[in-house]
Amino acid sequence: MKQVIDVKTSGGVRRVGAGGDTVVHVGGVPVGPDHLTVIAGPSTVESEEQIRAAARVVKRLGGGILRAGVFQPKASPYEFQGLGETALRLLRDAADEAGLPVLTEVADPRDVGLVVEYADALLIAARDMQNLPLLKEVGLARRPVFLERGPAATIEEWMLAAECILDAGNPQVVLCERGIRTFDTAAGATLDLAAVALVKRLSHLPVVTDPHYHGGHPDLICGMARAAVAAGSDGLMIRVHPDPDRALCEGPQSLGPLDFAALMHDVRRLAPLVGKKLP
Amino acid sequence: MKQVIDVKTSGGVRRVGAGGDTVVHVGGVPVGPDHLTVIAGPSTVESEEQIRAAARVVKRLGGGILRAGVFQPKASPYEFQGLGETALRLLRDAADEAGLPVLTEVADPRDVGLVVEYADALLIAARDMQNLPLLKEVGLARRPVFLERGPAATIEEWMLAAECILDAGNPQVVLCERGIRTFDTAAGATLDLAAVALVKRLSHLPVVTDPHYHGGHPDLICGMARAAVAAGSDGLMIRVHPDPDRALCEGPQSLGPLDFAALMHDVRRLAPLVGKKLP
Amino acid sequence: MKQVIDVKTSGGVRRVGAGGDTVVHVGGVPVGPDHLTVIAGPSTVESEEQIRAAARVVKRLGGGILRAGVFQPKASPYEFQGLGETALRLLRDAADEAGLPVLTEVADPRDVGLVVEYADALLIAARDMQNLPLLKEVGLARRPVFLERGPAATIEEWMLAAECILDAGNPQVVLCERGIRTFDTAAGATLDLAAVALVKRLSHLPVVTDPHYHGGHPDLICGMARAAVAAGSDGLMIRVHPDPDRALCEGPQSLGPLDFAALMHDVRRLAPLVGKKLP
Amino acid sequence: MKQVIDVKTSGGVRRVGAGGDTVVHVGGVPVGPDHLTVIAGPSTVESEEQIRAAARVVKRLGGGILRAGVFQPKASPYEFQGLGETALRLLRDAADEAGLPVLTEVADPRDVGLVVEYADALLIAARDMQNLPLLKEVGLARRPVFLERGPAATIEEWMLAAECILDAGNPQVVLCERGIRTFDTAAGATLDLAAVALVKRLSHLPVVTDPHYHGGHPDLICGMARAAVAAGSDGLMIRVHPDPDRALCEGPQSLGPLDFAALMHDVRRLAPLVGKKLP
Repeated sequence: MKQVIDVKTSGGVRRVGAGGDTVVHVGGVPVGPDHLTVIAGPSTVESEEQIRAAARVVKRLGGGILRAGVFQPKASPYEFQGLGETALRLLRDAADEAGLPVLTEVADPRDVGLVVEYADALLIAARDMQNLPLLKEVGLARRPVFLERGPAATIEEWMLAAECILDAGNPQVVLCERGIRTFDTAAGATLDLAAVALVKRLSHLPVVTDPHYHGGHPDLICGMARAAVAAGSDGLMIRVHPDPDRALCEGPQSLGPLDFAALMHDVRRLAPLVGKKLP
Repeated sequence: MKQVIDVKTSGGVRRVGAGGDTVVHVGGVPVGPDHLTVIAGPSTVESEEQIRAAARVVKRLGGGILRAGVFQPKASPYEFQGLGETALRLLRDAADEAGLPVLTEVADPRDVGLVVEYADALLIAARDMQNLPLLKEVGLARRPVFLERGPAATIEEWMLAAECILDAGNPQVVLCERGIRTFDTAAGATLDLAAVALVKRLSHLPVVTDPHYHGGHPDLICGMARAAVAAGSDGLMIRVHPDPDRALCEGPQSLGPLDFAALMHDVRRLAPLVGKKLP
Repeated sequence: MKQVIDVKTSGGVRRVGAGGDTVVHVGGVPVGPDHLTVIAGPSTVESEEQIRAAARVVKRLGGGILRAGVFQPKASPYEFQGLGETALRLLRDAADEAGLPVLTEVADPRDVGLVVEYADALLIAARDMQNLPLLKEVGLARRPVFLERGPAATIEEWMLAAECILDAGNPQVVLCERGIRTFDTAAGATLDLAAVALVKRLSHLPVVTDPHYHGGHPDLICGMARAAVAAGSDGLMIRVHPDPDRALCEGPQSLGPLDFAALMHDVRRLAPLVGKKLP
Repeated sequence: MKQVIDVKTSGGVRRVGAGGDTVVHVGGVPVGPDHLTVIAGPSTVESEEQIRAAARVVKRLGGGILRAGVFQPKASPYEFQGLGETALRLLRDAADEAGLPVLTEVADPRDVGLVVEYADALLIAARDMQNLPLLKEVGLARRPVFLERGPAATIEEWMLAAECILDAGNPQVVLCERGIRTFDTAAGATLDLAAVALVKRLSHLPVVTDPHYHGGHPDLICGMARAAVAAGSDGLMIRVHPDPDRALCEGPQSLGPLDFAALMHDVRRLAPLVGKKLP
């Protein structure tokens, strides 16, 4: 039987000997080998009404963690930049009301102190995978960190970035695959599910998958979500918006409540086949 | 309810209007939207004993089509080059004995006439996806053609290559995803399962997946096979050898009988969840 | 002083010990370490008038070898497919009139016998770099072979493909870099000039560069041609059309006479700085 | 005749109408269309003696700007992390003694205030190309910024990152091409010289090239440096160490004084051919 420990208290990212898999807890919600944890929510907090509606949908349909962006840094000065601390408070309140823990992105090392006051876990976006001052800062925080793979990062580089966080003192790291950049631009990024399987062999850390970065067809997102579960992912990151057509940000890539319900239906049937249950 | 036609008799690779999906029959075995067809066998025919043992394993465990290489062209003059026509005959006899149809690669347009005397279906390998004289020649043959995606081919280019076969008069084409070349060399090629889902939306042709090209761990091959089924593949191409340790070719990437049995076990449980049955 | 031999009569593609560089002669024109040989001509032979005009332009401005396609295989059934043997004869006559040797593509192993009756050298296009029956067939021909690098071929694979030709008995191989496929599609393929420098260190074969595959600005083509010479290329493959606006094929990527004259002007000034002269 | 303005005071990264090229001045040294500026120095400041020796070599052989790392953030916790502010002071003193301006990397937005006290220009490394808080912070600084292209950044994304700096109020941006990540790992990154030519057409900003990221052969570095000049680069970033065999960091990729002298010799001869002079 597979030995499971709550959090590795020493050592690095790589498996050593017969050590068990790490389980990371976000609020009380486990992310690890025995569970299939769905982390869901809108791309950005837009208003009190929107985030409360989103939180209710996520909770009711079986999501385990609420996720939304608040600072919304964009790689262009011309896009919506988010609502900042106001949004953090709205996000926290909506999550509390629905009974969900909160994951949100942090991109500036100077914001970490503020964000940990509101969020249960921190997300390092793909573009910041090698933002070394940021990795060090979240390594000092007492919150789980979800570390997205950079769009051109090898598995080795991804694990080294996680190592920077562990090395700074924080053992609660979850890896997140969300697609790599290849010549194939028809589907946005190329979701690399073999990397999920491979990194789970090499490392004891949980690995979740974000199946969104390949265009905006709900069918494709659900298909890739199923494939991610079948490949062994410990969780899914899903963009859910109460009304995608009115979203300020990434609407076409977001699932509405009905599509999210269909996805959860599939996931519930698949999870037992790979030895997992929803938390 | 989804309309299914046996083979499109006109038109191209792309879906037009509400037309149904194409079903390609290899021997009597269907490849198409309602089935999950497992095509399996050793990389190369090595001897009468080996190919007979392989055929028995494939048949007994539920494989639908026997597949093995006979000419085994290699992109280096220093590797084993296959047994040629002798191997074709051994392959045919082993398949007949086991009650399976045969798929084998053809790489030289001058060999097509010979190969169709023995094989039920023809495989165009990834490296030949844009070998235009070869595409034209198999387009004139009265055998189904499995067309692997080139390692750097966009979905558009892959579909155009299929179009060359249809255009020459042969509507029985099955597309085969087997991984693209990316910066991530840790897992050999990067299996692009979103492409499977995407090309099934764009085209009416069946799509199968070869989950082998990412290193030689049976665990990873089985994981990616499960993911391919979950993503909607109409079939799997699996390298099975009665004794991988003694294989002359691609042994480390081949499954032995026990690993193949485990894979078939998983596949049987997954297929109904995506609306498919084994033929 | 660098030892130069005319053609290696034994051994493989790799440098061994202090052996010299191979010089390949096309007609009487050398391609090798001391020369900068410009191979130029239209993408396709369109008419007697067009190819004669092109040949005159190439010769007058200092091109060493005339190059044009005659079969023009395309990776889509819907494009112009070339004029075949008629075009071969027009190409030969135009070249003879202008006093140039001829390079043309061959894509079907069954065409090699015909093509060698007309052409001084054979071109294997990028898409056929691993077309093994074709490599073997040109390996039996007594004509120099220009082998383009496949769009996703590593340097190792490119050299192994050349090895297939040498191994079949033909030591007169010239390598041709023409860009690799990367995520950066803004410039078509990505010209990999470091590969030119690297393969010249690893191998004794001449290496030429085709700077066209990155969009159709004459400025960019000339800039990349200069860069290729500065990086150590032994030659350039240039698409020249007497009237690009009327070209049936790849017109926007072709240089007209004035742009070609400007390119030759730059090349003449650069060549001496890298120890080369025009033949 | 090409109109040249000192620094664009309004508008974005893209060329608009017949506007001239931007010239950025570092200390008094120009980087722009009429010059070929060599920015050189060791990967890291290791000691007072080392950086003074390096500065003397750079100045004597014709380098225009001294460059060295001081914080040396590494994407692994196990590598040398640099000497910090002590190194900044040593770098400044060595540069003053030699009569050179200073370029150094900044990776943490909290360090910008400190670094501008010592450095004439700031380098944003490839891994930080989309570090948005950092871009904003250097956009507020009154120092020129050299912005390296991310290893998987399209030209569009690179220009948008520059736009973030301009948008924050700093018009003094120099773009730096240093290779993209492709399947071809034989040469580290793939130097994309077509991107240099292309971005110079699209933007009015100066573009320099770092030819180092393709392995450690001085021959290849010099070859790519020549190619970069021939392709139209406005400058070169060269790693020079007084004694590469003893370097603490990137020694094998650094040129010693003799190799640097050879490179400068080549560059001096090439520059006039592309209409440039050394400042």
